[in-house]
Amino acid sequence: MKISPEILNLVPYKPGKPISETQREYGLTTVYKLASNENPLGPSPKAMAAVRHALDHQHLYPDPSHYELLHTLSKEWGVPTQQLGIGNGSDELIDLLTRIYCEPHDGVLTSVAAFNAYEVSAPANRAIIHKIPMKEGYRFDLPAIADYFMAHHESKKIRLIFVSNPNNPTGTYAPKMELEAFLEKVGNRDDVMVIFDEAYNEFVRATDYASAQNYIKKYKNLIVLRTFSKIYGLAGFRIGAMVAPPEVIEVFNRVRKPFNVNDLAQVAANAAVQDKEFIERSQQTCWKGLDYFYKKLEELGLPYIPSQGNFVMFDTLRDAAKVNEALLRRGIIMRPLFNYGFKTHLRLSVGKEHENQAAIQALAEVLKEIPTLS
Amino acid sequence: MKISPEILNLVPYKPGKPISETQREYGLTTVYKLASNENPLGPSPKAMAAVRHALDHQHLYPDPSHYELLHTLSKEWGVPTQQLGIGNGSDELIDLLTRIYCEPHDGVLTSVAAFNAYEVSAPANRAIIHKIPMKEGYRFDLPAIADYFMAHHESKKIRLIFVSNPNNPTGTYAPKMELEAFLEKVGNRDDVMVIFDEAYNEFVRATDYASAQNYIKKYKNLIVLRTFSKIYGLAGFRIGAMVAPPEVIEVFNRVRKPFNVNDLAQVAANAAVQDKEFIERSQQTCWKGLDYFYKKLEELGLPYIPSQGNFVMFDTLRDAAKVNEALLRRGIIMRPLFNYGFKTHLRLSVGKEHENQAAIQALAEVLKEIPTLS
Repeated sequence: MKISPEILNLVPYKPGKPISETQREYGLTTVYKLASNENPLGPSPKAMAAVRHALDHQHLYPDPSHYELLHTLSKEWGVPTQQLGIGNGSDELIDLLTRIYCEPHDGVLTSVAAFNAYEVSAPANRAIIHKIPMKEGYRFDLPAIADYFMAHHESKKIRLIFVSNPNNPTGTYAPKMELEAFLEKVGNRDDVMVIFDEAYNEFVRATDYASAQNYIKKYKNLIVLRTFSKIYGLAGFRIGAMVAPPEVIEVFNRVRKPFNVNDLAQVAANAAVQDKEFIERSQQTCWKGLDYFYKKLEELGLPYIPSQGNFVMFDTLRDAAKVNEALLRRGIIMRPLFNYGFKTHLRLSVGKEHENQAAIQALAEVLKEIPTLS
Repeated sequence: MKISPEILNLVPYKPGKPISETQREYGLTTVYKLASNENPLGPSPKAMAAVRHALDHQHLYPDPSHYELLHTLSKEWGVPTQQLGIGNGSDELIDLLTRIYCEPHDGVLTSVAAFNAYEVSAPANRAIIHKIPMKEGYRFDLPAIADYFMAHHESKKIRLIFVSNPNNPTGTYAPKMELEAFLEKVGNRDDVMVIFDEAYNEFVRATDYASAQNYIKKYKNLIVLRTFSKIYGLAGFRIGAMVAPPEVIEVFNRVRKPFNVNDLAQVAANAAVQDKEFIERSQQTCWKGLDYFYKKLEELGLPYIPSQGNFVMFDTLRDAAKVNEALLRRGIIMRPLFNYGFKTHLRLSVGKEHENQAAIQALAEVLKEIPTLS
């Protein structure tokens, strides 16, 4: 049966290799997955206590209004419930925003090497992605994105701009001054939505970073995405949230399925967001792990990009496919970045201390096996 | 910001009123929800044992390939994994099939008073729903649907036909002979997909019923939807499956988000489908409850539609809004069906024995309070 070409040619998001798949393929028992920026401390203990308590009523449909969670988030984040939306992961938020605002062949604007989900959701909604090259240091070039928008928004029918801040996989960020200058240019327009994806927000150490959430009142076309998969350790549950103008939330709540978010995810997120001790411990673990990686990568002579996430992207100076394959054989899953256009880089998530050490140990061995390029 | 009119005018699916909401609104502690065709026995015990075992790794992303579940379903259902797709509830399957096959303004064909999700997913994907009146006995008029398709498929660009069998909310079904005659007319065409939604399949007692799954090999444009929310008692988890031609599954797996189905849902479904004892006990509970309802509704003088689901639709002979409101005040949640065009009917799900009795008791009281129409 005939299918429109955008969908027929869609290249799906390639997730990190699961542990079970790696065990099967390589005949391994011990496999460390440092490929998907998951929380090495496990899920929030408060979340899991709440989940255990809720297990016996899983024959009932989830609350379609997300009542409890919305009220907790409203209190924790200081945002009215009318400006909060909940999705089956921020993946679903990205997809539904694209669906709502883009007619077929409308444009979605982002950066080269931005989080890949924007680029996948566009054709899945018959929209067209436009990507602006990064500037030096693997950073979003916000002035160039704004300029492109101004020059082409009519001809390309650009309806959405996605900025991931900090960005995955590069770990880079846009400082407050750049963010403010950008919002001055594209903010408060009635022909485009500006979406800041802040999945890694809680891991930022840079003192000149600012969340776009601080500007929600000032700009009426600004949306901020958050996830419970990272700092809260709830990736398995699938839950993300957005802060957006009430009109956006109203439409979103009609277009989303009533039971888009499973019950245990709502229960877990509601508890996790209040688990301050776990949040702090997760931050400390991340930062300690990153500092360890930086030190070891320097010792190994591999360039890396200082990261504001819970991962680091580094240059193997070798064919990353070969390095990755050799690491997999040793039971270490890192993340190749070919789909982002990086042929010698890998992305390494912060794991538990012994996982971090095993990863570096394996990497050191592999580097000796595989020759550098040129 | 401008949004296309199909989305702007979208009337969302109205789910059953949650217990917590009813407790809040009516100041009640004891509330029985017989509104959403949930399993009164709770979730499958085998599923819950598997879920408890999986709780400690919920910081990891779910398996994007649904590997374990696909292999179990393949074995249990006798279908190759290449013909199985998994969704965030069959809701998501309905929505994504609509998205994949319908361009804006394409047509989706179904019956009046069919399960409401088809009608909601169409405009959410900028498609247009066409509904054929039911025939006597609140049944899908499959010959009329086929005739309408033949006459209008070009002018209305009809790409999908949805048949819910048995249907919710009416509880009626298409017997094997009607199904076969229908498939002879619309099967094996390359311009339309024929989707049988068999969410209530396992509750059927009618001996002349046949699952469309038996015809999957014969018709290359046939898709069958299944859910884990009903007989398996996993509504809170959000998981559904489809049996479809390999080409459909291939496109579906690219358009769906990689982490569309949460991890615990995969774990629970994988165990539940093998929990034969629970399936049988759920069937017996359903059939016993239905027979009790039939008997009591007859005593109360209320016409009902014999049901092949785990619920019964009956005629209150009164303003159903008033009856429903009076039931809510007594802590009984049934399902009004105004959005299906039924102004005097309610739908009542089979609950636990004491819940069924309490529902009938409350109904008997309410009938005395509220006058019959005309």
